[in-house]
Amino acid sequence: MPSVMARFDATATRRDRLRAALIDAVPGADAVLVTDAVNVRYLSGFTGSNGAVLVWADPDAAGHDDAISTDGRYTVQVGEQAADLMLVGAREVAKALLESAGRAGARRVGFEADSVTVAGHAALAGAVAGVDLVATSGLVEGLREVKDAGEIGAIARACGVADTALAQIIDDGMIAPGRSERAVARALEWAMYRHGAAGIAFETIVAAGANSAVPHHRPTDAVLGAGDFVKIDFGAVVDGYHSDMTRTYVLVAAQPWQREVYELVAAAATAGRRAARAGTGAGAVDGAARAVIDAAGRGAEFVHGLGHGVGLQIHEAPSVGSGATGTLLDGAVVTVEPGVYLPGRGGVRIEDTVVVSDGPCQILTATDRTFTVLD
Amino acid sequence: MPSVMARFDATATRRDRLRAALIDAVPGADAVLVTDAVNVRYLSGFTGSNGAVLVWADPDAAGHDDAISTDGRYTVQVGEQAADLMLVGAREVAKALLESAGRAGARRVGFEADSVTVAGHAALAGAVAGVDLVATSGLVEGLREVKDAGEIGAIARACGVADTALAQIIDDGMIAPGRSERAVARALEWAMYRHGAAGIAFETIVAAGANSAVPHHRPTDAVLGAGDFVKIDFGAVVDGYHSDMTRTYVLVAAQPWQREVYELVAAAATAGRRAARAGTGAGAVDGAARAVIDAAGRGAEFVHGLGHGVGLQIHEAPSVGSGATGTLLDGAVVTVEPGVYLPGRGGVRIEDTVVVSDGPCQILTATDRTFTVLD
Repeated sequence: MPSVMARFDATATRRDRLRAALIDAVPGADAVLVTDAVNVRYLSGFTGSNGAVLVWADPDAAGHDDAISTDGRYTVQVGEQAADLMLVGAREVAKALLESAGRAGARRVGFEADSVTVAGHAALAGAVAGVDLVATSGLVEGLREVKDAGEIGAIARACGVADTALAQIIDDGMIAPGRSERAVARALEWAMYRHGAAGIAFETIVAAGANSAVPHHRPTDAVLGAGDFVKIDFGAVVDGYHSDMTRTYVLVAAQPWQREVYELVAAAATAGRRAARAGTGAGAVDGAARAVIDAAGRGAEFVHGLGHGVGLQIHEAPSVGSGATGTLLDGAVVTVEPGVYLPGRGGVRIEDTVVVSDGPCQILTATDRTFTVLD
Repeated sequence: MPSVMARFDATATRRDRLRAALIDAVPGADAVLVTDAVNVRYLSGFTGSNGAVLVWADPDAAGHDDAISTDGRYTVQVGEQAADLMLVGAREVAKALLESAGRAGARRVGFEADSVTVAGHAALAGAVAGVDLVATSGLVEGLREVKDAGEIGAIARACGVADTALAQIIDDGMIAPGRSERAVARALEWAMYRHGAAGIAFETIVAAGANSAVPHHRPTDAVLGAGDFVKIDFGAVVDGYHSDMTRTYVLVAAQPWQREVYELVAAAATAGRRAARAGTGAGAVDGAARAVIDAAGRGAEFVHGLGHGVGLQIHEAPSVGSGATGTLLDGAVVTVEPGVYLPGRGGVRIEDTVVVSDGPCQILTATDRTFTVLD
């Protein structure tokens, strides 16, 4: 957990980046009203369920203090988490900040068109005479694509919890014939909590035998058997940040086709991680991994994109799929997760969470990814 | 799990109720486009992550077949879950259904202004020439307030799982001095999964000692001690439906003030459950419980509303608080959960999930709610 001053510095830097993005996107905007809960947390550190943040384009003008609004339930909490922002106490947080902006002279205020509902907009639009609302899209989400050191540290801690938990349940003999998919999933989640997770990153996937051929299988009472692939896709949440990792094992004894499919996916994963550098098109990174699988004649069995950004949300920008048009940025954190799925037989996915830079990516998920038979 | 035909009958009945509500709310509307994921599930049974439903005002006119849209990932699933609806396969499900409606002659189509974002609306508004979008609010949420027999059965099963899980961890001696709040929460969740929960209904609250005075405390590494209040607020999900229950115990030995506060809250809970009848104002139900606590001079220590509806979401209509203006309907499922919180000392909440009817409410959460010292 960073010190209070380091946290305030980090959120202040993010708000400065947002000012620059706002001026680019909406010429003449005086301020932007942020209401998406994840974006509010990103810009302020506040984690309550009812909050909004107002960020001014020109913070040096008189009365242009960046502000946060929340209701009385969170007065103590917001004072600890976001003491550097002006507090506007209210139940209707967006309206209260808009009124505050109007009193301070704002005339054009951006709002988040990707999360404000039509009804929410209607309630705001006429609320403050003389203030026009202007739609913005993806401003904060774009900033969040590049992680700062504190964010990378939190994701690394989440990945570490996941690594430790998986190692523990393997040591405990939990991934073995006779266990149900559900029991393995619960044991893994329990181990993540014990090792410091504040939550699980998404519904844990444990898929055995033919079920492993279903990319997003939900754990059932199906029992693991000798000779099965067991595919495990899971993650932890630490300080609000997510990890994401998939490992696939064979139980007791492997068939040659299993090793062949596994090594193919492993080669694709390596190619994907090598391609994941700042400045490379996201579609080209997907393509680097996909080419390996295509060359083996299994392209049709890799049925999803290569990866996605990870951070305060388990899926966020950038998208790393075959149709992705963006470019990987220095400091982005993405998954690389090729898979090959043979319906009725089984499937393999190998997924790591990595930090993109100008050099080779930094792999945050450390669990061994060589072909492993658990016995 | 009800039979397929019973499920189809239930969702067809819901769509018929929606037609009637649409005609009342939007005179002249030809159809309504439902995009909120929970509402889509309610009207169709479909549980995928990308779906929309189109319901016509007059289903007897030519071409007015109620329709569902989802993408290729869910083709098999939607065929099982919603085989009685016309399928329009597409990635952009809302747009595809609007186009389909336009081809079938629709000119005025309602949309859900409480969940469609401004950006989503902008993408739809001009998409189909000759079709006007009309904002609707709370149409499906209003229908969901009255549960059918299948829904009440699912909530009852979820409540049963929660009862069984709590009994088990008490039998196992898990709620005892030396255990951490976190460990108790995880044990309870694990027990719910083992007894058939598909998920947990919300982040489990386990709050010991002074922490029990915080209404929505998150479990920490704080260790339970002799003499503590331990407040446990938790629920299970079964077939998509939620349970919600709070019990508060004293560990090892109770002080007189603990029994006094407990009995006060228990009396308020009884008064609230007795008042919870069809036709009674929701505010009056809150008032019946609150009056008991007020009369003891502790009104300022009951800092939240008495309850809320429970169903496909953990919080849904109706609200049962001091400012609530609605009337309880026959078939509503609500919580009754008074609490008294003494900052720095401890707090008590007793919460049950009940079915409202013309007679006494039916209590779905069966765990003993008399004053109990665990030793």
